[in-house]
Amino acid sequence: MNAEIISIGDELLIGQRLNTNAPFIASEMAAAGIGVGRIIVCSDQETSIEDQLAESLERSDIVLVTGGLGPTRDDRTKQAVGSLLSRNLVFDEGVYAQTVERYRNYRREPAPYLRENAMILEGARVIRNETGLAPGMIIRCDEAYPDRWLVLMPGVPREMEEMIRNGVIPFFSEISGGVIVHAHIRTTGTGETVLSELIRPIEDVLPEGTSLAYLPHTAGVALRVSTSGSDRETVEEQNRAIADAIREKVGEFIYANEDITLEESVGKMLADRGLTIACAESCTGGLVASRLTDVSGSSRYFLQGFVVYSNASKEKALGVRSSTLVAHGAVSEEVAGEMAEGCLAATGADITVSSTGIAGPLGGLETKPVGTVCLGVAFRGENGMVECRTETVHVRGDRLRNKIRFSEAALRMVWKTLRDLPV
Amino acid sequence: MNAEIISIGDELLIGQRLNTNAPFIASEMAAAGIGVGRIIVCSDQETSIEDQLAESLERSDIVLVTGGLGPTRDDRTKQAVGSLLSRNLVFDEGVYAQTVERYRNYRREPAPYLRENAMILEGARVIRNETGLAPGMIIRCDEAYPDRWLVLMPGVPREMEEMIRNGVIPFFSEISGGVIVHAHIRTTGTGETVLSELIRPIEDVLPEGTSLAYLPHTAGVALRVSTSGSDRETVEEQNRAIADAIREKVGEFIYANEDITLEESVGKMLADRGLTIACAESCTGGLVASRLTDVSGSSRYFLQGFVVYSNASKEKALGVRSSTLVAHGAVSEEVAGEMAEGCLAATGADITVSSTGIAGPLGGLETKPVGTVCLGVAFRGENGMVECRTETVHVRGDRLRNKIRFSEAALRMVWKTLRDLPV
Repeated sequence: MNAEIISIGDELLIGQRLNTNAPFIASEMAAAGIGVGRIIVCSDQETSIEDQLAESLERSDIVLVTGGLGPTRDDRTKQAVGSLLSRNLVFDEGVYAQTVERYRNYRREPAPYLRENAMILEGARVIRNETGLAPGMIIRCDEAYPDRWLVLMPGVPREMEEMIRNGVIPFFSEISGGVIVHAHIRTTGTGETVLSELIRPIEDVLPEGTSLAYLPHTAGVALRVSTSGSDRETVEEQNRAIADAIREKVGEFIYANEDITLEESVGKMLADRGLTIACAESCTGGLVASRLTDVSGSSRYFLQGFVVYSNASKEKALGVRSSTLVAHGAVSEEVAGEMAEGCLAATGADITVSSTGIAGPLGGLETKPVGTVCLGVAFRGENGMVECRTETVHVRGDRLRNKIRFSEAALRMVWKTLRDLPV
Repeated sequence: MNAEIISIGDELLIGQRLNTNAPFIASEMAAAGIGVGRIIVCSDQETSIEDQLAESLERSDIVLVTGGLGPTRDDRTKQAVGSLLSRNLVFDEGVYAQTVERYRNYRREPAPYLRENAMILEGARVIRNETGLAPGMIIRCDEAYPDRWLVLMPGVPREMEEMIRNGVIPFFSEISGGVIVHAHIRTTGTGETVLSELIRPIEDVLPEGTSLAYLPHTAGVALRVSTSGSDRETVEEQNRAIADAIREKVGEFIYANEDITLEESVGKMLADRGLTIACAESCTGGLVASRLTDVSGSSRYFLQGFVVYSNASKEKALGVRSSTLVAHGAVSEEVAGEMAEGCLAATGADITVSSTGIAGPLGGLETKPVGTVCLGVAFRGENGMVECRTETVHVRGDRLRNKIRFSEAALRMVWKTLRDLPV
């Protein structure tokens, strides 16, 4: 089966909003073994929608539509489908009861438009909306477009995502009688090119039914191995075999075998071992602390952060020696080391990380160009002795991108240190 | 004239990458008075491209294509256009010379594929690529599709953006004989709904040739007033009149009359007055410091940041009294105020900002639900006396969104304080 996505909304056609729905749907469908051949953004006028639906249903087995399902006059998707397939809109008691119930929980009186909201296309299968109001629908197009399926979903990302995961994918998996299994491999510290070089021998002979996706994320590339077939045991076995073979090739870059961020992985290691962390940042300007505290529950292990931009604050807050600043410059492994050690002493944390560098666009030097960062990690090693590691990393980008890459390198260094520490 | 955008690339069809090119083009074209009726993502197979081009050229005056212009075997756009329009690819000396020259600057020998790169469609007008290699093209489709235009651009965002701004928009403006003028109004602290309510009386009677776009950004909504016409003076006058009328209606929410972020606006005010800033953050976890230091040149005014997650660090680093923590709880305006004042004393900055709140999803209380943040701003007022303002803000979202909204509220509070201070 092949699919096509139609995103409805004038706001997408004037560039007011990024179309994040279509890539999400495309990725989930691909993982379920259904390829998406086209993504189309079209205006929310009824005639445009109807024209586009007709064109897409000619071409594809499954047409997934988001947007235009609300109760306002701008929302014309249901009407366009009704006109194209010559079907009526009928009142659905179940949908109405569900939304009235939801309103009651908020202690609000049901608004008159809830009846309009509960009108669904004749013969449609309802996909419950667990967070919003407009129901989704799966429609078999019958005689008008034999064997074609139309899926209608709201444009609100959270509502649509839930419907795709819990309604749409299970439905099409069931009618195709298949099983799908995924394995997640999260890498950091290298790009798609290097990874695909390493994986190529496996990728070139991927067995039928298994696919591999490279999904970029902030800290690196996530690999997703998806296997589909009819027998669960066989599918799981094949998926595991391929995932394990890939893990063997790219092992040094893997930070997690589940779908989590680098900061979540670091947080898990800290929490599991009962360790605390603090950070001392110059060029990353608080971004390392911010990423560490993006993780829910981080207050258990994150103690404190310092953003020390000026030399004076590096000396005062962290005890960096002015002689070190003079001898090596603020951007040096020596200063990064003293920052990390000073942070350890000031906070009593078990591990600390520091950054000092040049995010740009100004401030680059011949020997220390824009994109240079010196990082330090300090921790209490055996016998409680303070140990300190430093490294220098070079990246290329604009100021914001450099800050992000610097913070990635810092988190990576913490992650590596924790990995190497005896538990 | 109406337009249509085709984004070519299999990576967009499996959800591996967000399509940011199309919204950019759509927004620029809309500002130039050319509406985009459809955005289509299609596979990079030659037959798919050719089918899609034929379909789009039937429908729209201008078809803008990105992707598939590189020199590798995957790149089939030029071939697809050649086949559709029955045109040959011809070698362009100018393009070749330009890329060879660029290579020389990097002291590299011209690669053989540079000749392939310099093959352009017969009769095409070249759009120079200032940063990359593949040239863009504007093609009048002549007898095959009379009065239709085809624009080919690389998929690399930076190269494409430059071509749109410096090649494509000026070209179509010139053939339409028009002038376009924009006014930017940056607002913060409210949403599109409130703004459009306020602006409606003006929007309902917008003169022909002037359009208004609501463009969401991290800190709020940017308004862009675009006016097109044939006479520059008239166009500028009309644009200014409408922009001024809007400014009068939404004045309280405006932080800038140019296209800059809230943190840039705060930075400008600080730099212009020679003031310094420091921050003390709990729930925002370093994000306020990170945003302030996202601005190039921020080392001139940003002194230091504290990320104080634990009560102990609030006391130790900022001198918050434990009696205040006990009496009012960590999330209180009293603690926010002491954090801001303590930060002022510790750093000697002219103004400080603090945050303490509950980002969630855990930690919410009956009286202080998830999404509550208490903010403080301290500064030296008249006679050098320390003044302190506090406020409590409620937002709704997941942890990351709450952190972002909290940091916006903090920056907004700094901005308002600076606005009210005598210069």
